[in-house]
Amino acid sequence: MVNRRTFLRSSLAGTALLVIPFDAFGQTSPKSDNSTIKTSSSRDRSEGTSFHLGMAGYTFVKFDLDTTLAFMKKIDVHYLCIKDFHLPLDADAEQIAAFKAKLEAANVIGYAVGPIYMKDVAAVDKAFAYAQRVGVDLIVGVPGVWGDTTPNYEVLDRVEQKVKETNIRYAIHLHGPDMTLYPDATSIWNDVKDRDPRLGMCLDIGHNLRYGSDSIRDLKRYAKRVFDIHLKDVTAPTKEGHAIELGRGIIDFPAFVKMLRKVGYKGSVSLEYEKDMNDPFIGIAESVGYFKAITEQG
Amino acid sequence: MVNRRTFLRSSLAGTALLVIPFDAFGQTSPKSDNSTIKTSSSRDRSEGTSFHLGMAGYTFVKFDLDTTLAFMKKIDVHYLCIKDFHLPLDADAEQIAAFKAKLEAANVIGYAVGPIYMKDVAAVDKAFAYAQRVGVDLIVGVPGVWGDTTPNYEVLDRVEQKVKETNIRYAIHLHGPDMTLYPDATSIWNDVKDRDPRLGMCLDIGHNLRYGSDSIRDLKRYAKRVFDIHLKDVTAPTKEGHAIELGRGIIDFPAFVKMLRKVGYKGSVSLEYEKDMNDPFIGIAESVGYFKAITEQG
Repeated sequence: MVNRRTFLRSSLAGTALLVIPFDAFGQTSPKSDNSTIKTSSSRDRSEGTSFHLGMAGYTFVKFDLDTTLAFMKKIDVHYLCIKDFHLPLDADAEQIAAFKAKLEAANVIGYAVGPIYMKDVAAVDKAFAYAQRVGVDLIVGVPGVWGDTTPNYEVLDRVEQKVKETNIRYAIHLHGPDMTLYPDATSIWNDVKDRDPRLGMCLDIGHNLRYGSDSIRDLKRYAKRVFDIHLKDVTAPTKEGHAIELGRGIIDFPAFVKMLRKVGYKGSVSLEYEKDMNDPFIGIAESVGYFKAITEQG
Repeated sequence: MVNRRTFLRSSLAGTALLVIPFDAFGQTSPKSDNSTIKTSSSRDRSEGTSFHLGMAGYTFVKFDLDTTLAFMKKIDVHYLCIKDFHLPLDADAEQIAAFKAKLEAANVIGYAVGPIYMKDVAAVDKAFAYAQRVGVDLIVGVPGVWGDTTPNYEVLDRVEQKVKETNIRYAIHLHGPDMTLYPDATSIWNDVKDRDPRLGMCLDIGHNLRYGSDSIRDLKRYAKRVFDIHLKDVTAPTKEGHAIELGRGIIDFPAFVKMLRKVGYKGSVSLEYEKDMNDPFIGIAESVGYFKAITEQG
Protein backbone atom coordinates (compact mmCIF):
# COMPACT_ATOMS: atom_id res chain seq x y z
CA MET A 1 0.00 0.00 0.00
CA VAL A 2 2.91 2.31 0.71
CA ASN A 3 4.96 3.26 -2.30
CA ARG A 4 7.91 0.91 -1.92
CA ARG A 5 10.43 3.57 -2.93
CA THR A 6 9.05 6.01 -0.37
CA PHE A 7 9.26 3.32 2.27
CA LEU A 8 12.82 2.33 1.44
CA ARG A 9 13.89 5.94 1.34
CA SER A 10 12.65 6.37 4.89
CA SER A 11 14.36 3.15 5.96
CA LEU A 12 17.61 4.38 4.47
CA ALA A 13 17.19 7.69 6.27
CA GLY A 14 17.39 5.66 9.46
CA THR A 15 20.49 3.68 8.57
CA ALA A 16 22.16 6.80 7.19
CA LEU A 17 22.76 7.86 10.79
CA LEU A 18 25.45 5.20 10.98
CA VAL A 19 27.35 6.85 8.18
CA ILE A 20 27.25 10.49 9.29
CA PRO A 21 30.08 10.36 11.84
CA PHE A 22 32.58 9.09 9.32
CA ASP A 23 31.53 11.68 6.75
CA ALA A 24 31.66 14.34 9.44
CA PHE A 25 35.29 13.68 10.34
CA GLY A 26 36.62 12.39 7.05
CA GLN A 27 38.62 9.23 6.58
CA THR A 28 41.85 10.58 8.00
CA SER A 29 40.32 11.76 11.29
CA PRO A 30 41.42 9.82 14.40
CA LYS A 31 37.84 10.17 15.66
CA SER A 32 36.69 7.71 13.03
CA ASP A 33 37.76 4.98 15.50
CA ASN A 34 35.66 6.49 18.29
CA SER A 35 34.53 3.34 20.09
CA THR A 36 31.30 4.98 21.28
CA ILE A 37 30.00 5.15 17.72
CA LYS A 38 28.25 2.19 16.12
CA THR A 39 30.16 0.85 13.15
CA SER A 40 29.29 -1.60 10.45
CA SER A 41 31.03 -4.17 12.65
CA SER A 42 28.95 -3.28 15.73
CA ARG A 43 26.52 -6.08 16.41
CA ASP A 44 23.13 -5.06 15.04
CA ARG A 45 21.18 -7.96 13.60
CA SER A 46 18.05 -5.90 12.93
CA GLU A 47 19.18 -4.67 9.51
CA GLY A 48 18.06 -7.00 6.75
CA THR A 49 16.29 -9.27 9.21
CA SER A 50 13.65 -11.48 7.61
CA PHE A 51 10.76 -10.36 9.86
CA HIS A 52 9.50 -6.90 10.78
CA LEU A 53 7.85 -5.30 13.79
CA GLY A 54 4.25 -4.26 13.29
CA MET A 55 1.16 -3.26 15.22
CA ALA A 56 -2.03 -5.28 15.56
CA GLY A 57 -4.81 -2.80 14.86
CA TYR A 58 -6.85 -4.03 17.82
CA THR A 59 -4.32 -2.30 20.10
CA PHE A 60 -5.92 0.99 19.00
CA VAL A 61 -9.57 -0.01 19.44
CA LYS A 62 -10.14 3.16 21.50
CA PHE A 63 -8.48 5.48 18.98
CA ASP A 64 -9.19 6.73 15.48
CA LEU A 65 -6.93 6.14 12.48
CA ASP A 66 -5.30 9.59 12.59
CA THR A 67 -4.27 9.15 16.23
CA THR A 68 -3.04 5.64 15.47
CA LEU A 69 -0.92 6.70 12.50
CA ALA A 70 0.52 9.76 14.24
CA PHE A 71 1.61 7.54 17.12
CA MET A 72 3.06 4.85 14.83
CA LYS A 73 5.13 7.55 13.15
CA LYS A 74 6.41 8.64 16.57
CA ILE A 75 7.51 5.09 17.50
CA ASP A 76 8.86 4.45 13.98
CA VAL A 77 6.75 1.33 13.28
CA HIS A 78 5.56 0.89 9.70
CA TYR A 79 3.34 -2.19 9.50
CA LEU A 80 -0.31 -2.33 10.61
CA CYS A 81 -2.87 -5.13 10.63
CA ILE A 82 -6.05 -3.30 9.66
CA LYS A 83 -9.07 -3.61 11.97
CA ASP A 84 -12.63 -2.96 10.85
CA PHE A 85 -13.10 -0.07 13.29
CA HIS A 86 -10.49 1.80 11.21
CA LEU A 87 -11.77 0.54 7.85
CA PRO A 88 -15.30 -0.97 7.85
CA LEU A 89 -15.90 -4.32 6.13
CA ASP A 90 -18.39 -2.62 3.81
CA ALA A 91 -16.00 0.22 2.91
CA ASP A 92 -16.41 1.28 -0.72
CA ALA A 93 -13.63 2.09 -3.21
CA GLU A 94 -13.62 5.75 -2.21
CA GLN A 95 -13.31 5.04 1.52
CA ILE A 96 -10.54 2.52 0.84
CA ALA A 97 -8.65 4.99 -1.36
CA ALA A 98 -8.84 7.65 1.36
CA PHE A 99 -7.69 5.12 3.96
CA LYS A 100 -4.72 4.02 1.82
CA ALA A 101 -3.75 7.64 1.21
CA LYS A 102 -3.55 8.23 4.96
CA LEU A 103 -1.40 5.14 5.46
CA GLU A 104 0.93 6.11 2.63
CA ALA A 105 1.26 9.65 4.03
CA ALA A 106 2.24 8.09 7.38
CA ASN A 107 4.62 5.65 5.67
CA VAL A 108 2.66 2.72 7.06
CA ILE A 109 2.00 -0.54 5.21
CA GLY A 110 -1.36 -2.18 5.87
CA TYR A 111 -0.10 -5.75 5.57
CA ALA A 112 -3.29 -7.65 6.45
CA VAL A 113 -6.87 -7.29 7.69
CA GLY A 114 -8.35 -8.71 10.85
CA PRO A 115 -8.99 -10.39 13.11
CA ILE A 116 -12.39 -10.88 11.50
CA TYR A 117 -14.96 -13.26 13.03
CA MET A 118 -16.92 -15.24 10.43
CA LYS A 119 -20.14 -16.73 11.71
CA ASP A 120 -21.24 -18.24 8.38
CA VAL A 121 -20.27 -18.67 4.72
CA ALA A 122 -21.77 -15.28 3.84
CA ALA A 123 -19.38 -13.67 6.35
CA VAL A 124 -16.49 -15.54 4.71
CA ASP A 125 -17.43 -14.25 1.27
CA LYS A 126 -17.77 -10.72 2.65
CA ALA A 127 -14.36 -10.86 4.34
CA PHE A 128 -12.53 -12.12 1.25
CA ALA A 129 -14.25 -9.51 -0.97
CA TYR A 130 -13.12 -6.87 1.56
CA ALA A 131 -9.53 -8.13 1.54
CA GLN A 132 -9.54 -8.06 -2.28
CA ARG A 133 -10.85 -4.47 -2.36
CA VAL A 134 -8.25 -3.40 0.24
CA GLY A 135 -5.55 -5.24 -1.70
CA VAL A 136 -3.96 -7.39 1.01
CA ASP A 137 -2.85 -11.00 0.64
CA LEU A 138 -3.54 -12.06 4.23
CA ILE A 139 -6.67 -12.28 6.38
CA VAL A 140 -6.46 -12.91 10.11
CA GLY A 141 -9.75 -14.53 10.94
CA VAL A 142 -11.81 -16.81 13.09
CA PRO A 143 -14.07 -19.34 11.35
CA GLY A 144 -16.80 -18.95 13.93
CA VAL A 145 -17.98 -16.53 16.59
CA TRP A 146 -17.01 -15.75 20.16
CA GLY A 147 -18.53 -18.45 22.37
CA ASP A 148 -18.39 -21.28 19.82
CA THR A 149 -17.11 -24.44 21.46
CA THR A 150 -16.40 -26.43 18.31
CA PRO A 151 -14.97 -25.45 14.93
CA ASN A 152 -17.54 -24.64 12.25
CA TYR A 153 -16.33 -26.83 9.38
CA GLU A 154 -18.89 -25.49 6.93
CA VAL A 155 -17.31 -22.06 7.43
CA LEU A 156 -13.76 -23.45 7.35
CA ASP A 157 -14.50 -25.34 4.11
CA ARG A 158 -15.72 -22.10 2.55
CA VAL A 159 -12.56 -20.33 3.77
CA GLU A 160 -10.44 -22.96 2.04
CA GLN A 161 -12.47 -22.57 -1.14
CA LYS A 162 -12.02 -18.77 -1.10
CA VAL A 163 -8.28 -19.12 -0.41
CA LYS A 164 -7.96 -21.23 -3.55
CA GLU A 165 -10.09 -18.76 -5.55
CA THR A 166 -8.33 -15.58 -4.41
CA ASN A 167 -4.80 -16.74 -3.41
CA ILE A 168 -5.32 -14.75 -0.18
CA ARG A 169 -3.79 -16.57 2.81
CA TYR A 170 -5.91 -17.11 5.91
CA ALA A 171 -4.42 -17.07 9.40
CA ILE A 172 -6.69 -18.43 12.12
CA HIS A 173 -6.39 -16.36 15.28
CA LEU A 174 -5.97 -18.16 18.61
CA HIS A 175 -7.24 -16.72 21.85
CA GLY A 176 -5.92 -18.86 24.69
CA PRO A 177 -8.07 -19.90 27.66
CA ASP A 178 -10.50 -17.00 27.03
CA MET A 179 -12.10 -18.83 24.10
CA THR A 180 -12.90 -22.50 23.64
CA LEU A 181 -12.62 -22.29 19.85
CA TYR A 182 -8.95 -22.46 18.79
CA PRO A 183 -7.33 -21.69 22.15
CA ASP A 184 -3.78 -22.51 21.01
CA ALA A 185 -1.51 -23.20 18.06
CA THR A 186 -1.96 -26.99 18.16
CA SER A 187 -5.75 -26.74 17.93
CA ILE A 188 -5.36 -24.69 14.74
CA TRP A 189 -2.64 -26.93 13.31
CA ASN A 190 -4.89 -29.94 13.64
CA ASP A 191 -7.56 -28.25 11.50
CA VAL A 192 -5.27 -26.81 8.80
CA LYS A 193 -2.43 -29.31 8.42
CA ASP A 194 -4.32 -31.37 5.82
CA ARG A 195 -5.79 -28.37 4.02
CA ASP A 196 -4.46 -25.91 1.44
CA PRO A 197 -1.00 -24.66 2.56
CA ARG A 198 -2.32 -21.10 2.45
CA LEU A 199 -4.42 -21.84 5.56
CA GLY A 200 -2.45 -21.26 8.73
CA MET A 201 -2.40 -19.34 11.97
CA CYS A 202 -1.76 -16.02 13.66
CA LEU A 203 0.38 -17.18 16.57
CA ASP A 204 -0.45 -15.04 19.59
CA ILE A 205 2.54 -15.86 21.79
CA GLY A 206 0.83 -14.48 24.89
CA HIS A 207 -2.56 -16.18 24.59
CA ASN A 208 -0.90 -19.44 23.50
CA LEU A 209 1.27 -19.34 26.62
CA ARG A 210 -1.69 -18.40 28.85
CA TYR A 211 -3.26 -21.66 27.66
CA GLY A 212 -0.10 -23.40 28.89
CA SER A 213 1.32 -24.03 25.41
CA ASP A 214 4.95 -23.35 24.57
CA SER A 215 4.92 -20.54 21.99
CA ILE A 216 8.58 -20.88 20.98
CA ARG A 217 8.19 -24.65 20.54
CA ASP A 218 5.00 -24.06 18.53
CA LEU A 219 6.67 -21.42 16.33
CA LYS A 220 9.29 -24.03 15.45
CA ARG A 221 6.82 -26.91 15.15
CA TYR A 222 4.24 -25.10 12.99
CA ALA A 223 6.50 -22.54 11.25
CA LYS A 224 5.29 -23.27 7.73
CA ARG A 225 1.73 -22.42 8.81
CA VAL A 226 2.55 -19.33 10.89
CA PHE A 227 1.55 -16.36 8.71
CA ASP A 228 1.22 -13.68 11.39
CA ILE A 229 2.33 -13.27 15.01
CA HIS A 230 0.81 -11.29 17.85
CA LEU A 231 3.60 -10.05 20.08
CA LYS A 232 2.93 -9.55 23.78
CA ASP A 233 4.25 -10.36 27.22
CA VAL A 234 2.17 -11.86 30.02
CA THR A 235 2.53 -12.22 33.78
CA ALA A 236 1.74 -15.96 34.03
CA PRO A 237 1.15 -18.99 31.77
CA THR A 238 -2.42 -19.29 33.03
CA LYS A 239 -5.85 -17.73 32.39
CA GLU A 240 -5.02 -15.35 35.22
CA GLY A 241 -1.92 -14.17 33.37
CA HIS A 242 -2.48 -10.68 32.02
CA ALA A 243 -0.81 -8.48 29.42
CA ILE A 244 2.18 -6.38 30.49
CA GLU A 245 4.95 -4.33 28.89
CA LEU A 246 7.41 -6.47 26.90
CA GLY A 247 10.28 -7.54 29.14
CA ARG A 248 8.34 -7.19 32.40
CA GLY A 249 6.56 -10.52 32.10
CA ILE A 250 7.64 -14.13 31.83
CA ILE A 251 8.35 -14.52 28.10
CA ASP A 252 11.97 -15.13 27.08
CA PHE A 253 12.19 -12.71 24.13
CA PRO A 254 15.82 -13.36 23.20
CA ALA A 255 14.89 -17.05 22.81
CA PHE A 256 11.80 -16.07 20.82
CA VAL A 257 13.80 -13.85 18.43
CA LYS A 258 16.40 -16.61 17.97
CA MET A 259 13.60 -18.96 16.94
CA LEU A 260 12.14 -16.36 14.52
CA ARG A 261 15.56 -16.36 12.83
CA LYS A 262 16.03 -20.12 13.05
CA VAL A 263 12.76 -20.83 11.21
CA GLY A 264 13.33 -17.88 8.85
CA TYR A 265 10.02 -16.28 9.72
CA LYS A 266 9.29 -13.63 7.08
CA GLY A 267 6.05 -12.07 8.27
CA SER A 268 5.09 -9.36 10.68
CA VAL A 269 5.61 -9.60 14.42
CA SER A 270 2.79 -7.34 15.49
CA LEU A 271 2.51 -5.95 18.98
CA GLU A 272 -1.01 -6.44 20.32
CA TYR A 273 -0.90 -4.45 23.53
CA GLU A 274 -3.88 -5.18 25.74
CA LYS A 275 -2.87 -3.32 28.91
CA ASP A 276 -4.22 0.18 29.70
CA MET A 277 -6.17 0.19 26.46
CA ASN A 278 -7.57 3.63 27.25
CA ASP A 279 -4.02 5.02 27.38
CA PRO A 280 -1.63 2.40 26.00
CA PHE A 281 0.94 4.68 24.38
CA ILE A 282 3.62 4.73 27.09
CA GLY A 283 3.51 0.96 27.47
CA ILE A 284 3.60 0.40 23.72
CA ALA A 285 6.62 2.69 23.33
CA GLU A 286 8.50 0.90 26.13
CA SER A 287 7.63 -2.45 24.51
CA VAL A 288 8.77 -1.30 21.07
CA GLY A 289 12.08 -0.05 22.45
CA TYR A 290 12.58 -3.33 24.28
CA PHE A 291 11.81 -5.49 21.23
CA LYS A 292 13.99 -3.37 18.92
CA ALA A 293 16.97 -3.87 21.25
CA ILE A 294 16.34 -7.62 21.54
CA THR A 295 16.08 -7.84 17.74
CA GLU A 296 19.36 -5.95 17.32
CA GLN A 297 21.18 -8.15 19.82
CA GLY A 298 19.35 -11.47 19.63
CA MET B 1 15.01 8.75 50.79
CA VAL B 2 12.78 5.82 50.02
CA ASN B 3 12.44 3.30 52.80
CA ARG B 4 14.84 0.62 51.66
CA ARG B 5 12.51 -2.20 52.64
CA THR B 6 9.64 -0.67 50.68
CA PHE B 7 11.94 -0.31 47.70
CA LEU B 8 13.22 -3.88 47.86
CA ARG B 9 9.73 -5.22 48.28
CA SER B 10 8.72 -3.57 45.01
CA SER B 11 11.84 -4.84 43.29
CA LEU B 12 11.07 -8.35 44.44
CA ALA B 13 7.52 -7.99 43.21
CA GLY B 14 9.06 -7.60 39.77
CA THR B 15 11.35 -10.58 39.94
CA ALA B 16 8.64 -12.71 41.54
CA LEU B 17 7.08 -12.96 38.08
CA LEU B 18 9.88 -15.32 37.13
CA VAL B 19 8.82 -17.71 39.86
CA ILE B 20 5.08 -17.80 39.27
CA PRO B 21 5.03 -20.26 36.37
CA PHE B 22 6.82 -22.94 38.33
CA ASP B 23 4.60 -22.47 41.36
CA ALA B 24 1.58 -22.48 39.08
CA PHE B 25 2.35 -25.84 37.53
CA GLY B 26 4.26 -27.51 40.33
CA GLN B 27 7.53 -29.34 39.95
CA THR B 28 6.05 -32.43 38.35
CA SER B 29 4.21 -30.54 35.59
CA PRO B 30 5.66 -31.05 32.10
CA LYS B 31 4.94 -27.37 31.46
CA SER B 32 7.69 -26.41 33.87
CA ASP B 33 10.10 -26.89 30.95
CA ASN B 34 8.09 -24.53 28.74
CA SER B 35 10.88 -22.95 26.69
CA THR B 36 8.90 -19.72 26.22
CA ILE B 37 9.19 -18.90 29.91
CA LYS B 38 12.25 -17.16 31.32
CA THR B 39 14.13 -19.33 33.76
CA SER B 40 16.92 -18.64 36.19
CA SER B 41 19.22 -19.87 33.41
CA SER B 42 17.74 -17.48 30.84
CA ARG B 43 20.25 -14.76 30.13
CA ASP B 44 19.25 -11.69 32.09
CA ARG B 45 22.20 -9.73 33.39
CA SER B 46 20.08 -6.89 34.78
CA GLU B 47 19.43 -8.59 38.14
CA GLY B 48 22.07 -7.71 40.67
CA THR B 49 23.82 -5.42 38.23
CA SER B 50 26.06 -2.85 39.90
CA PHE B 51 24.47 0.22 38.27
CA HIS B 52 20.84 1.32 38.00
CA LEU B 53 18.74 3.23 35.50
CA GLY B 54 17.56 6.64 36.64
CA MET B 55 16.12 9.86 35.31
CA ALA B 56 17.89 13.22 35.17
CA GLY B 57 15.38 15.68 36.60
CA TYR B 58 16.08 18.19 33.82
CA THR B 59 14.18 15.87 31.46
CA PHE B 60 11.00 17.05 33.19
CA VAL B 61 11.72 20.80 33.15
CA LYS B 62 8.27 21.41 31.63
CA PHE B 63 6.42 19.23 34.17
CA ASP B 64 5.61 19.39 37.86
CA LEU B 65 6.75 16.79 40.39
CA ASP B 66 3.42 14.93 40.50
CA THR B 67 3.41 14.44 36.73
CA THR B 68 7.06 13.39 36.83
CA LEU B 69 6.56 10.81 39.58
CA ALA B 70 3.36 9.39 38.06
CA PHE B 71 5.23 8.87 34.80
CA MET B 72 8.28 7.35 36.48
CA LYS B 73 5.98 4.87 38.19
CA LYS B 74 4.51 3.97 34.78
CA ILE B 75 7.94 3.29 33.27
CA ASP B 76 9.14 1.52 36.44
CA VAL B 77 12.18 3.75 37.01
CA HIS B 78 13.05 4.47 40.64
CA TYR B 79 16.01 6.88 40.75
CA LEU B 80 15.78 10.63 40.18
CA CYS B 81 18.40 13.37 40.17
CA ILE B 82 16.53 16.24 41.81
CA LYS B 83 16.34 19.56 39.93
CA ASP B 84 15.65 22.87 41.65
CA PHE B 85 12.43 23.46 39.69
CA HIS B 86 11.02 20.46 41.60
CA LEU B 87 12.66 21.35 44.92
CA PRO B 88 13.95 24.96 45.23
CA LEU B 89 17.46 25.58 46.57
CA ASP B 90 15.95 27.59 49.42
CA ALA B 91 13.41 24.90 50.33
CA ASP B 92 12.85 24.73 54.08
CA ALA B 93 12.54 21.60 56.23
CA GLU B 94 8.79 21.43 55.73
CA GLN B 95 8.99 21.68 51.93
CA ILE B 96 11.73 19.05 51.87
CA ALA B 97 9.72 16.69 54.08
CA ALA B 98 6.71 17.05 51.79
CA PHE B 99 8.91 16.46 48.73
CA LYS B 100 10.46 13.33 50.26
CA ALA B 101 7.03 12.00 51.20
CA LYS B 102 5.93 12.26 47.56
CA LEU B 103 9.05 10.44 46.36
CA GLU B 104 8.62 7.70 48.92
CA ALA B 105 4.96 7.28 47.96
CA ALA B 106 6.08 6.88 44.34
CA ASN B 107 8.86 4.48 45.36
CA VAL B 108 11.46 6.84 43.89
CA ILE B 109 14.89 7.48 45.38
CA GLY B 110 16.23 11.02 44.99
CA TYR B 111 19.87 9.99 44.65
CA ALA B 112 21.43 13.41 43.98
CA VAL B 113 20.69 17.08 43.35
CA GLY B 114 21.55 19.09 40.27
CA PRO B 115 22.89 20.14 37.93
CA ILE B 116 23.39 23.31 39.96
CA TYR B 117 25.37 26.25 38.51
CA MET B 118 27.59 27.98 41.10
CA LYS B 119 28.72 31.44 40.11
CA ASP B 120 30.59 32.17 43.35
CA VAL B 121 31.58 30.76 46.74
CA ALA B 122 28.27 31.85 48.26
CA ALA B 123 26.47 29.73 45.65
CA VAL B 124 28.71 26.79 46.59
CA ASP B 125 27.85 27.15 50.28
CA LYS B 126 24.15 27.41 49.44
CA ALA B 127 24.24 24.29 47.25
CA PHE B 128 26.02 22.16 49.86
CA ALA B 129 23.65 23.36 52.62
CA TYR B 130 20.75 22.40 50.33
CA ALA B 131 22.22 18.94 49.66
CA GLN B 132 22.66 18.42 53.40
CA ARG B 133 19.06 19.42 54.14
CA VAL B 134 17.80 17.14 51.36
CA GLY B 135 20.04 14.35 52.62
CA VAL B 136 21.89 13.32 49.47
CA ASP B 137 25.57 12.44 49.21
CA LEU B 138 26.07 13.68 45.64
CA ILE B 139 25.81 17.07 43.96
CA VAL B 140 25.93 17.41 40.18
CA GLY B 141 27.23 20.90 39.64
CA VAL B 142 29.07 23.41 37.53
CA PRO B 143 31.67 25.60 39.26
CA GLY B 144 30.78 28.61 37.17
CA VAL B 145 27.94 29.96 35.05
CA TRP B 146 26.75 29.44 31.52
CA GLY B 147 29.01 31.44 29.22
CA ASP B 148 32.17 31.15 31.34
CA THR B 149 35.13 30.35 29.14
CA THR B 150 37.59 29.39 31.87
CA PRO B 151 37.18 27.44 35.10
CA ASN B 152 36.60 29.54 38.20
CA TYR B 153 39.22 28.11 40.56
CA GLU B 154 38.09 30.21 43.51
CA VAL B 155 34.73 28.46 43.22
CA LEU B 156 36.31 25.06 42.61
CA ASP B 157 38.58 25.48 45.66
CA ARG B 158 35.52 26.22 47.78
CA VAL B 159 33.79 23.14 46.34
CA GLU B 160 36.75 20.99 47.40
CA GLN B 161 36.69 22.55 50.87
CA LYS B 162 32.94 21.82 51.24
CA VAL B 163 33.40 18.24 49.96
CA LYS B 164 35.95 17.67 52.74
CA GLU B 165 33.67 19.30 55.33
CA THR B 166 30.46 17.49 54.37
CA ASN B 167 31.66 14.24 52.72
CA ILE B 168 29.23 15.03 49.89
CA ARG B 169 30.70 14.07 46.50
CA TYR B 170 30.69 16.62 43.69
CA ALA B 171 30.25 15.62 40.05
CA ILE B 172 31.10 18.34 37.53
CA HIS B 173 28.63 18.31 34.66
CA LEU B 174 29.98 18.50 31.10
CA HIS B 175 28.04 20.08 28.29
CA GLY B 176 29.83 19.34 25.05
CA PRO B 177 30.31 21.95 22.31
CA ASP B 178 27.41 24.04 23.65
CA MET B 179 29.52 25.35 26.53
CA THR B 180 33.18 26.35 26.61
CA LEU B 181 33.49 25.55 30.33
CA TYR B 182 34.02 21.79 30.81
CA PRO B 183 32.90 20.60 27.37
CA ASP B 184 34.06 17.00 27.87
CA ALA B 185 35.29 14.41 30.35
CA THR B 186 38.99 15.15 29.82
CA SER B 187 38.56 18.83 30.63
CA ILE B 188 37.00 17.85 33.97
CA TRP B 189 39.56 15.13 34.69
CA ASN B 190 42.37 17.66 34.31
CA ASP B 191 40.84 19.86 37.02
CA VAL B 192 39.93 17.13 39.52
CA LYS B 193 42.63 14.47 39.15
CA ASP B 194 44.91 16.12 41.73
CA ARG B 195 42.08 17.09 44.08
CA ASP B 196 40.09 15.23 46.74
CA PRO B 197 38.90 11.88 45.29
CA ARG B 198 35.32 12.92 46.07
CA LEU B 199 35.50 15.47 43.22
CA GLY B 200 34.60 13.91 39.89
CA MET B 201 32.25 14.13 36.96
CA CYS B 202 28.78 13.50 35.63
CA LEU B 203 29.65 11.88 32.30
CA ASP B 204 27.07 12.95 29.74
CA ILE B 205 27.75 10.36 27.05
CA GLY B 206 25.85 12.36 24.43
CA HIS B 207 27.39 15.80 25.00
CA ASN B 208 30.85 14.25 25.40
CA LEU B 209 30.44 12.53 22.03
CA ARG B 210 29.03 15.69 20.41
CA TYR B 211 32.34 17.33 21.39
CA GLY B 212 34.06 14.52 19.48
CA SER B 213 35.25 12.69 22.59
CA ASP B 214 34.90 8.92 22.98
CA SER B 215 32.48 8.39 25.89
CA ILE B 216 33.17 4.66 26.31
CA ARG B 217 36.94 5.28 26.30
CA ASP B 218 36.45 8.10 28.81
CA LEU B 219 34.24 5.96 31.07
CA LYS B 220 37.09 3.46 31.22
CA ARG B 221 39.83 6.07 31.51
CA TYR B 222 38.21 8.18 34.24
CA ALA B 223 36.05 5.50 35.95
CA LYS B 224 37.19 6.28 39.48
CA ARG B 225 36.00 9.88 39.06
CA VAL B 226 32.69 9.12 37.28
CA PHE B 227 30.00 9.58 39.96
CA ASP B 228 26.95 10.07 37.72
CA ILE B 229 26.11 9.44 34.06
CA HIS B 230 23.67 11.19 31.75
CA LEU B 231 22.30 8.64 29.32
CA LYS B 232 21.26 9.77 25.85
CA ASP B 233 21.64 9.00 22.19
CA VAL B 234 22.62 11.55 19.54
CA THR B 235 22.48 11.74 15.76
CA ALA B 236 26.09 12.85 15.15
CA PRO B 237 29.37 13.35 17.08
CA THR B 238 29.29 17.08 16.32
CA LYS B 239 27.64 20.25 17.64
CA GLU B 240 24.93 19.63 15.05
CA GLY B 241 24.20 16.23 16.55
CA HIS B 242 20.91 16.32 18.41
CA ALA B 243 19.19 14.14 20.99
CA ILE B 244 17.13 11.18 19.78
CA GLU B 245 15.50 8.06 21.21
CA LEU B 246 18.04 5.52 22.53
CA GLY B 247 18.94 3.08 19.78
CA ARG B 248 18.02 5.41 16.91
CA GLY B 249 21.25 7.40 17.03
CA ILE B 250 24.93 6.57 16.68
CA ILE B 251 25.87 5.38 20.18
CA ASP B 252 26.83 1.72 20.57
CA PHE B 253 24.86 0.91 23.75
CA PRO B 254 25.85 -2.75 24.05
CA ALA B 255 29.49 -1.61 24.09
CA PHE B 256 28.63 1.11 26.62
CA VAL B 257 26.88 -1.37 28.95
CA LYS B 258 29.81 -3.78 28.66
CA MET B 259 32.12 -0.98 29.79
CA LEU B 260 29.82 -0.07 32.70
CA ARG B 261 30.25 -3.68 33.86
CA LYS B 262 33.96 -3.83 33.08
CA VAL B 263 34.72 -0.80 35.27
CA GLY B 264 32.17 -1.91 37.90
CA TYR B 265 30.28 1.38 37.73
CA LYS B 266 28.00 1.54 40.78
CA GLY B 267 26.11 4.77 40.29
CA SER B 268 23.01 5.84 38.41
CA VAL B 269 22.76 5.85 34.63
CA SER B 270 20.21 8.61 34.29
CA LEU B 271 18.34 9.26 31.08
CA GLU B 272 18.44 12.94 30.21
CA TYR B 273 16.03 13.12 27.32
CA GLU B 274 16.27 16.42 25.49
CA LYS B 275 14.05 15.71 22.47
CA ASP B 276 10.42 16.89 22.33
CA MET B 277 10.73 18.37 25.82
CA ASN B 278 7.14 19.61 25.68
CA ASP B 279 5.95 16.02 25.21
CA PRO B 280 8.86 13.66 25.88
CA PHE B 281 6.98 10.72 27.40
CA ILE B 282 6.70 8.44 24.36
CA GLY B 283 10.38 8.88 23.50
CA ILE B 284 11.46 8.34 27.10
CA ALA B 285 9.44 5.12 27.34
CA GLU B 286 10.92 3.78 24.09
CA SER B 287 14.40 4.69 25.36
CA VAL B 288 13.82 3.00 28.73
CA GLY B 289 12.58 -0.17 27.07
CA TYR B 290 15.59 -0.17 24.77
CA PHE B 291 18.11 0.33 27.59
CA LYS B 292 16.48 -2.29 29.82
CA ALA B 293 16.81 -4.88 27.05
CA ILE B 294 20.44 -3.93 26.35
CA THR B 295 21.17 -4.17 30.08
CA GLU B 296 19.56 -7.62 30.29
CA GLN B 297 21.47 -8.91 27.26
CA GLY B 298 24.69 -6.86 27.28
